[in-house]
Amino acid sequence: MTPSDVLPFRRSATSPAANAAHAGGTGIVMMNLGGPKTLDDVEPFLLRLFADREIIQLPFQDWLGKFIATRRAPKVRKLYDAIGGGSPILKWTEAQGEAMCRRLDEMSPATAPHKFYVAFRYTNPFADDALRAMKADGITRAVAFTQYPQWSCSTTGSSLNDLWRAAARTGLEDAFEWSIIDRWGEHPGFVSSMASAVEDGLDEFAADERDDVLVMFSAHSLPLSVIDRGDAYPAEVSATVSRVVQTIGLRNPYMVTYQSEVGPVRWLGPSTETVIEQLAQRGQKNVLVVPIAFTSDHIETLSELDIEYAELAHKLGMPGFKRAPALNARPEFLDALADIVHEHLQAGAPHSTQYRQRCPGCLNAACRSVPSRLAAACAPGAEDVQAMAETVGAR
Amino acid sequence: MTPSDVLPFRRSATSPAANAAHAGGTGIVMMNLGGPKTLDDVEPFLLRLFADREIIQLPFQDWLGKFIATRRAPKVRKLYDAIGGGSPILKWTEAQGEAMCRRLDEMSPATAPHKFYVAFRYTNPFADDALRAMKADGITRAVAFTQYPQWSCSTTGSSLNDLWRAAARTGLEDAFEWSIIDRWGEHPGFVSSMASAVEDGLDEFAADERDDVLVMFSAHSLPLSVIDRGDAYPAEVSATVSRVVQTIGLRNPYMVTYQSEVGPVRWLGPSTETVIEQLAQRGQKNVLVVPIAFTSDHIETLSELDIEYAELAHKLGMPGFKRAPALNARPEFLDALADIVHEHLQAGAPHSTQYRQRCPGCLNAACRSVPSRLAAACAPGAEDVQAMAETVGAR
Repeated sequence: MTPSDVLPFRRSATSPAANAAHAGGTGIVMMNLGGPKTLDDVEPFLLRLFADREIIQLPFQDWLGKFIATRRAPKVRKLYDAIGGGSPILKWTEAQGEAMCRRLDEMSPATAPHKFYVAFRYTNPFADDALRAMKADGITRAVAFTQYPQWSCSTTGSSLNDLWRAAARTGLEDAFEWSIIDRWGEHPGFVSSMASAVEDGLDEFAADERDDVLVMFSAHSLPLSVIDRGDAYPAEVSATVSRVVQTIGLRNPYMVTYQSEVGPVRWLGPSTETVIEQLAQRGQKNVLVVPIAFTSDHIETLSELDIEYAELAHKLGMPGFKRAPALNARPEFLDALADIVHEHLQAGAPHSTQYRQRCPGCLNAACRSVPSRLAAACAPGAEDVQAMAETVGAR
Repeated sequence: MTPSDVLPFRRSATSPAANAAHAGGTGIVMMNLGGPKTLDDVEPFLLRLFADREIIQLPFQDWLGKFIATRRAPKVRKLYDAIGGGSPILKWTEAQGEAMCRRLDEMSPATAPHKFYVAFRYTNPFADDALRAMKADGITRAVAFTQYPQWSCSTTGSSLNDLWRAAARTGLEDAFEWSIIDRWGEHPGFVSSMASAVEDGLDEFAADERDDVLVMFSAHSLPLSVIDRGDAYPAEVSATVSRVVQTIGLRNPYMVTYQSEVGPVRWLGPSTETVIEQLAQRGQKNVLVVPIAFTSDHIETLSELDIEYAELAHKLGMPGFKRAPALNARPEFLDALADIVHEHLQAGAPHSTQYRQRCPGCLNAACRSVPSRLAAACAPGAEDVQAMAETVGAR
């Protein structure tokens, strides 16, 4: 099965103007990991996560993935119990989507109405649900909008591949003209909303302690095997950090760390948890952890950072361990989401330039398969873009 | 021996104005790895490199380091023979230093004359030579200026520790008032000179191939043990790349890779060499490699990239493998070097904010020991800076 077998997308009209008025408006598919909404959703969530070969490769995956998921479920269930009985990620995504679409309708009447559809990777609503809902709403122009600011094949890559598979599963390959917002880690609006979240975090420290605060930008780690394949993630995370630091004019020392490593393989370091231990042992009193690669609260912020690592820090004698707030429904971030989509629609490019760059060590034939039938662009330079899309699709 | 035992620096006058006029002018110590000037310098160079515990930790280092260095020497000697019989790094550093000082004398008469002193880590001129020459020239105000744009404990860290040890060895602990330029990977002048080098590299491709070029920003790799300790290097390399890409408005796909890994330990990937192999096997025809973490031509550009990897690429059917020129004596870069020093002298900070951030996993007591007697700052806000220097020094 070649990529084009699983990705048959409707070819857009060749006239650049054809896209300007889609009767049904614009559907924006907000893709994310998702999280179990209730405690009973925990085990199914883990089963799907450990079955995803695009994020985890295990020997005898069908069997071993199931074994690990089932074994971890009770422990993870307890973690969700401690943060209120489920993940708030759907609630936040919906709040973000509603605010974003309201703003877009004002900013861009030509592409209105704008409707958002949540597509989680490991829990409902799934990509299949999003596609069926879009079809029912009469949408013909769709934007696949990753909610992970920085690219990784483990996150956005897996979600996109799943989206294209869902289109095949639901028989909706020809229903939509697509374009992709595949990364936005250096978008000025995202950067400045992240910068103000960091400033809010710093403000939580007493004035006479603030200069002593070490700012730890913490992102979810990846196995080194993913890094070695050429995944863009660590470079993009560091680029976001650099922009945020510059925007703040940060005078505190800072570093980039990676959290949530599991299992026996080696992950990208330095490890957030280990660094907290080392800093505490060295007598560092004040640390502000900033979740830099996720925009909503979820288990890694509410449980891992706020409970697990905070307890560790306090136990080791670090009284000033705090976390910067997640972006959630921060108005500046809602503006940023709308700006990102608006700029994308105006620019008319089918995806970022970087999307063309499949990992050199990638062995997954479906990865970076650019649908050959992407939305015709309606912006100046649209023919170049279309030509580029065709060139890329032909590769 | 505590850090302060090896780092007794002369306390500067408390008056901020005291530094403005140093009778002997300003000495700028240009710190770098260095490279063997002749084929006979190869083995001594390698012996010193493999003896440096701040860059390589080996079991039975005295014995094993010597064994590895002696064993590698004939092979490395051949590599230097193929690039003209020695490293050009001293020639380039001297050209850079001369041009930089000429510019500084014009820009900043108050701190003139400016004189540069080369301090290589593993070949002469050593830090000891630089310090003795500064003393002989009547210099009292000195700037330790790393020639590595991005921080790593393996490069700038090792050079600084060696500089402080050299001051003790030569009895010149009290001879100079110091400040440190410890990193400048995001300095606009450096970034724009790197951007124009990339553009020159892209111009080497035929117009109809240029859009197909993958730009590989390649930096020297580090063992993962260094990364896991919390070395700032990969984040700083990625930050440089992000700035360069933005400055160019690069429309080509790009990635960050790491080269020159040796020995049995695991290094940070993706590996430049492996990526070239993978891209060639996938049919990528055009690649521009950009040395992003070193500013002069040296063995890793002239031999590893231009000979070894180029032969590999051609053998595997990648006809368009090219390298962007090193900055060497590019006028824009000479301006940048002068600007970096000038801004440093004007700002009056003893070092960057990030310099305070010792790696959380560091076990080397000498690391980041800030000399308690740094140069008094002569700029507005100097008292804050001095207070900060003392706070840091007291930790």
